[in-house]
Amino acid sequence: MEYQIISIERLFSFCKGVFVKMGFSEEKAQKAAHVLLSADKRGIDSHGVARLSGYVKQWDMGKLQSQSQSQIIHQTPSTATLDGQAGLGLVIAQEAMEIAIKKAQQVGTGWVAVQNSGHFGIAGYHAMLALPHDMIGIVTTHASGLVAPTFSLEKLLGTNPFAVAIPALEEPPFVADFATTAVAYGKLQILQRKNEQALEGWMQDANANPTTNPHAPKEGGALLPLGSTRLHGSHKGYALGAIADILSGVLSGANYGPWVPPFATAGSTSERTPPVGKGTGHFLGAMRIDAFREADEFKRAMDHWIRTFRSAKAIEGEQVLIPGDPERILEEKRLLEGAPIHKAVMTDLEQLAQRFEIPL
Amino acid sequence: MEYQIISIERLFSFCKGVFVKMGFSEEKAQKAAHVLLSADKRGIDSHGVARLSGYVKQWDMGKLQSQSQSQIIHQTPSTATLDGQAGLGLVIAQEAMEIAIKKAQQVGTGWVAVQNSGHFGIAGYHAMLALPHDMIGIVTTHASGLVAPTFSLEKLLGTNPFAVAIPALEEPPFVADFATTAVAYGKLQILQRKNEQALEGWMQDANANPTTNPHAPKEGGALLPLGSTRLHGSHKGYALGAIADILSGVLSGANYGPWVPPFATAGSTSERTPPVGKGTGHFLGAMRIDAFREADEFKRAMDHWIRTFRSAKAIEGEQVLIPGDPERILEEKRLLEGAPIHKAVMTDLEQLAQRFEIPL
Repeated sequence: MEYQIISIERLFSFCKGVFVKMGFSEEKAQKAAHVLLSADKRGIDSHGVARLSGYVKQWDMGKLQSQSQSQIIHQTPSTATLDGQAGLGLVIAQEAMEIAIKKAQQVGTGWVAVQNSGHFGIAGYHAMLALPHDMIGIVTTHASGLVAPTFSLEKLLGTNPFAVAIPALEEPPFVADFATTAVAYGKLQILQRKNEQALEGWMQDANANPTTNPHAPKEGGALLPLGSTRLHGSHKGYALGAIADILSGVLSGANYGPWVPPFATAGSTSERTPPVGKGTGHFLGAMRIDAFREADEFKRAMDHWIRTFRSAKAIEGEQVLIPGDPERILEEKRLLEGAPIHKAVMTDLEQLAQRFEIPL
Repeated sequence: MEYQIISIERLFSFCKGVFVKMGFSEEKAQKAAHVLLSADKRGIDSHGVARLSGYVKQWDMGKLQSQSQSQIIHQTPSTATLDGQAGLGLVIAQEAMEIAIKKAQQVGTGWVAVQNSGHFGIAGYHAMLALPHDMIGIVTTHASGLVAPTFSLEKLLGTNPFAVAIPALEEPPFVADFATTAVAYGKLQILQRKNEQALEGWMQDANANPTTNPHAPKEGGALLPLGSTRLHGSHKGYALGAIADILSGVLSGANYGPWVPPFATAGSTSERTPPVGKGTGHFLGAMRIDAFREADEFKRAMDHWIRTFRSAKAIEGEQVLIPGDPERILEEKRLLEGAPIHKAVMTDLEQLAQRFEIPL
């Protein structure tokens, strides 16, 4: 069997246990496990428990501190810059969002640039933290070089995602969470394992020619920005990835571009030295709805927006989806039924279970 | 001759003159003409003087008020909601950006949602207003239905652009300004005039099949979101267009989705009634660099970012471009040599010259 179904609850307590054994506080371990499991529930399997061993590797290499505490190093009433102190990105991003929310409560919006952090899991999780406060959450981050800008032979950007979460009243919230590439790297990894061909428009080879070889990014090739080709707007996907990189890296004082440090399990190139900043960066914001308009009025209009789009005439057999719909439907299912864990990930988890003496 | 070269200066004073004859103050006419000409200089010809007669048509229809004054209807220290009072979007967006900049000076960032406005020209112009203040400018707006979300047969979104302007020190600024579609509508209009085929991936026909007929959007078809197909990420382009629409329309109290009123010269569907909000909306923000990090330090890092990308290995005969490069290079050229005005636009301008008794 290629996949094994495991309950979310069991995976959660296992992840939490591993983080505690690494020296993180009970609270931080819990916060971190929540982000990881959120990915597994929502079907972004590449960003969930599959990455747990990656965090352990970072910790083994001394690049991840379990005892440090993030610190605000600069601020104004609506902004802050946070030094993550080489802690766990999964937790630091939540701390940053809490600061953004507090500032939004005070002056309408809050924006936090983070340096010296690491991989923070799925961007959507952090953006959604704004929802219970009747705020819009906006989150971006960057990753190590895997994507070639339009015309480039070099991989200068990561898959740099954006997430935007917007509350509604009776309808579930609008939650967009997407990499700024034509395809997610997780999808390629699945094809790599199966040795199946990819689609044209997803990658270029070492000479910037189109390729369907799923291993291309490891062989001098690169992922393409959203838009795929110049004539189909790849310069726009490149611009989006660049904006994510500049807000996360240059504005915060973290590394940027090809200097963004690789995550232990990523398929990216090795670290470029010397660094040009501190660790990995993020950029997070929260905007109070009622800083612009009465919140219930807005949320009623969002319900109408969502219903208008969802009920639009669609091609046969399909429906116009609201960003976040597929993930939410899967989340409901997996909460009940558990998540399918790939055998390669199971092997990883079993090794961690042995090493840290935590039953899986 | 299909095109006639006219100096930017002459076009500017003509546009300004027309706005003055419509009853706008000297100051507003000047502000409006600056945005229009900025488009002609930067090569976004569809958004420049080509639209002048469109504004006049709006005014003729009583949809554009030359004597009204925009008003702040809600605010917090870092936000405001502005009612444009059915004035000229070209001017209202600048007034909104001035408010955003003032708020950023006070509390670090400023964000303004605008309702009851109209077409504001090129988004990049307004975003760039933040640059001299050492701020990052972020601007989005929406337009009437021309784009089908992924799987949709209906045109529910406009080409809804985003613009982000980021200052550097010695290098010219980073200025991204792009529609959230695979292709700009202006490019299609050129093909429509020449009756030439478009590229696959730009549009769908009335049954959501791929088409290269440049007239398709007028014949029940639609533009496709950035990404072109679901498997190449069109749901991401759709999400981006949706975010632009929600921030510009739902958050501000303007219309949204298929209710966004058409601009007189747009190729979009007719107005959906009754309206769900007031006029067209925008969303503009300014973030002070030194609200996050010492400004010169940031700008030096931006120089390094820009030089790293610009000097990356590229495919033969090309160079990795920084967003804003092509527009800036064209701007330098057209400032000296003038802008090429299409004969159809010339006819328009000549009619305006006669009507308003302003020499062209």
